[in-house]
Amino acid sequence: MVNSKKISTLAVLTEHNFYTMENRYCIIMSGGVGSRFWPFSRTSCPKQFLDFFGMGRTLLQMTYDRISHIIPAENIYIVTNEEYADITYQQLPEVSHSNILLESQRRNTAPCIAWASYHIRKLNPQAVMLVAPCDHIIFREDEFARTIERGFEFVRHNNRLLTIGIPPKRPETGYGYIQVSDTCTDGVCNVKTFVEKPDDDMARVLVESGEFLWNSGMFLWNVHTIIDALEKHLPDIATLFEKASDSILTAHEKEAIDKVYERCLTISVDFGIMEQTSNACVICADLGWSDLGTWNGLYEISPKTETGNVTQRCKTMLYDSTNNLVAVKGDKLVVLDGLNDYLVAESENVLLICPRENEKRIRQFVNDAKVKFDGKYN
Amino acid sequence: MVNSKKISTLAVLTEHNFYTMENRYCIIMSGGVGSRFWPFSRTSCPKQFLDFFGMGRTLLQMTYDRISHIIPAENIYIVTNEEYADITYQQLPEVSHSNILLESQRRNTAPCIAWASYHIRKLNPQAVMLVAPCDHIIFREDEFARTIERGFEFVRHNNRLLTIGIPPKRPETGYGYIQVSDTCTDGVCNVKTFVEKPDDDMARVLVESGEFLWNSGMFLWNVHTIIDALEKHLPDIATLFEKASDSILTAHEKEAIDKVYERCLTISVDFGIMEQTSNACVICADLGWSDLGTWNGLYEISPKTETGNVTQRCKTMLYDSTNNLVAVKGDKLVVLDGLNDYLVAESENVLLICPRENEKRIRQFVNDAKVKFDGKYN
Repeated sequence: MVNSKKISTLAVLTEHNFYTMENRYCIIMSGGVGSRFWPFSRTSCPKQFLDFFGMGRTLLQMTYDRISHIIPAENIYIVTNEEYADITYQQLPEVSHSNILLESQRRNTAPCIAWASYHIRKLNPQAVMLVAPCDHIIFREDEFARTIERGFEFVRHNNRLLTIGIPPKRPETGYGYIQVSDTCTDGVCNVKTFVEKPDDDMARVLVESGEFLWNSGMFLWNVHTIIDALEKHLPDIATLFEKASDSILTAHEKEAIDKVYERCLTISVDFGIMEQTSNACVICADLGWSDLGTWNGLYEISPKTETGNVTQRCKTMLYDSTNNLVAVKGDKLVVLDGLNDYLVAESENVLLICPRENEKRIRQFVNDAKVKFDGKYN
Repeated sequence: MVNSKKISTLAVLTEHNFYTMENRYCIIMSGGVGSRFWPFSRTSCPKQFLDFFGMGRTLLQMTYDRISHIIPAENIYIVTNEEYADITYQQLPEVSHSNILLESQRRNTAPCIAWASYHIRKLNPQAVMLVAPCDHIIFREDEFARTIERGFEFVRHNNRLLTIGIPPKRPETGYGYIQVSDTCTDGVCNVKTFVEKPDDDMARVLVESGEFLWNSGMFLWNVHTIIDALEKHLPDIATLFEKASDSILTAHEKEAIDKVYERCLTISVDFGIMEQTSNACVICADLGWSDLGTWNGLYEISPKTETGNVTQRCKTMLYDSTNNLVAVKGDKLVVLDGLNDYLVAESENVLLICPRENEKRIRQFVNDAKVKFDGKYN
C-alpha cells in the first residue's frame, strides 16, 4: 500500500513540478533524547528509534517513509547526535551516510537547523526546505503531501518562515499554540504570536477563541530566508557557521562543525527565531497529526477497549480495570485487577507503574534512577 | 553457619540417642501444585522449588537442610509427582534417587503418606517418622530440632498421632487451628478438635480463647501407628497398599504403586485421618513458623520499609506508595507511583498487578489464562 501510494503521489508531483522537485530538501531532526517515554525510550535509544505501534517501523522510519514520497531521497537529511549514528544507519540503510549529519553535542534545534541550512545552501542555493521533527504521527498522508506541496510553492516565491498549524481538536495542555492573524494570502496567514504549553483553563480559552492552531513543529522556508533569519536573530550562531562554511562539503566538514558546536549556544529554533521574528506565517492543515510526545499522547490516539484500556504489544487480562495504558515489551501476559487510570510500562530492565495524570513526574523518576543507580536504567 | 549448626546439633543428638537416630525417618511432601503464588509458581515449577528469598536455596532445599541436621540423610524421603523428578534431582543432588518416591498421579497427602509408610515399615519396623510439608518457613531451627527430638522420644514410646502446633501470633484466616484439651503428658496434649481456615471473626475468637494453636501440618508417629490409623480410617487405601507391599523395595515397586494410585482415593491426611481419630495429640512449639502459602503470607513475614512496602528480588523506587508487595524477577528496576496495598509480581512471561486483598482471585486469573491462552502462562 505504501509503495503504490508513493508511486502515485510522486507521479502527480513530478508531472507538475519537475523543476522544483530537485530543489526540495528536508531536514529530519532526530537527535532528541526525551525522558517522557521512559522506560521505553532510553538515553541509548530515544523514542524516535522505537516502533510504538508494533508495525515494524519506528517513528524515524515512518517519518522518512512519509517524506520520501514527496522529496527526492538524495535531498533528505537526517540530523542526529553522533551517539545515534549506528542506530540511524541500521534503521535507514537506504540513506547515504553523507546525508546523515552527526552532531557532536546536544545544542537543541537552532544549531541543528543552521548546520543543515548552510550545508544545503552550498549544495543548492535554490533549495526550499522542510524541517520535520520525527516524534509525531500523521494519519492523513495525502493531506500532508498536499500541504507540503502548497508550502513549497509558497516559500519558493516568498521569503517567509512558514509553519504548519493544526486545527485543535481539544484543549490539549501538552502542545504549543499559534495565534493566527486575519491577514492571509493563498491560504497562508500571518502569525500573531506563539503560545507555550498552556494550563487547563488557558488551553480551553485558546481553543474556544477559534484563533489558535496547534504548533506542529514543522517548518518550510527557502534556504536564504532561514539563513537571513539566523543572521538577524542568532548572529553568534550564524557567524560561527559562516566561518566554517569553507569546510562544508569537504572531508573536514564534521571536524569544523564539531568546533562550531563546542562554542555554540544551546537554543531552540522556536525560541531563537520563530518567537522573535515578525516574518512568521502559518499554513493550516488537518493532517490527523498527533505529537507523540508523552504516554498520554499515545493513549489519546490509540484504539481503546470498551473499558477505556489501551494495550501496546502485550496480551492482557483486565479485571475491574479501566482507562489504563499497558505497554509491555515481549510476548508477555499482563493481568491487572482493580487498577484505573494507570500507566503500566515495562521495557528491558525497568517496570513503571504510575497514574497517567502523573506522567510529568517521569522525568523526575528518570533523574532519580540516574542518581541512585548510576545511569544503569537510563 | 548452617554447617557449624548442623555439626553441633548432630553431635548433641548422636551422643544421647544413638540407637534412635538410625530409626528416625522423614517424609518431605513435595508434590503440591498450588496456583496461589502465580506467576512465580507455575505448573512446571510450583512454589516448593522456588527460592523466594533470593538466598540461593529453594523451599524444598531449606526444608531438606533443616531436617538433615536431625535425621540421617539416608532416612529422608522426598515424595513428589513424577513430573517434578528432574527438578528434584537437580535441587537435591545429595539425595539418592531411591529416596525420591515419584507419584504417578495427584492424590493429596493420605496416599503419599501411605506409600512412604509402607515403604519405611518394610525397611525398618522400628521406624519413627516425621512428616513435613515443604512450603513453610521456620526461623528458629534450634527450637525445631529440640521439638522434633522430643516428638520422636514421645512417639517411640506412645502409639499416638502427634502434630506440631504453633502458638498463634495473630487472628490469621489463612491457617487451620488445633484445639488443645486439658489432658497433657510430657508436654504433649490431647487434641480436642481441628478447625479449618476460619473467617475474620472466628479467627479472633479462636486466638483470644487461648485454647487454639496454629496447625503446622507437620506430624510425628511411629510407623505402626500410622498404618493402624490408615487401616482403621482409610481401609480402602490401606488394603491397596497392603496388596502391593510384596513389590515394595523391589524393582517393581514403582509399577505396583502406579496401579495403586490409579484406584486410590484422593484425600488429605488431615481430613482422612486426623479429623476422624481420637488418637491425635499435639506438641506446642514456637518455631518462628510461617506457612508460606500465599503472597500475603510472604508479605507478613518479610521485612518492610517505613512505608510498609516489601520488595523481593528487585530494585525499587517508590513514590507515594505504601504497603505493596513487589516481587519481580531479574535485575529489574520497579518504579511505583501512587500505588497502595497492591501485589506487583512478575516472573517469566507474566506480570500480575492486583490488590493484595484480592489474592484469592489469583486462582481465577490462572484458570482464565489457561482457558484463554491454552496453558501458555500456567
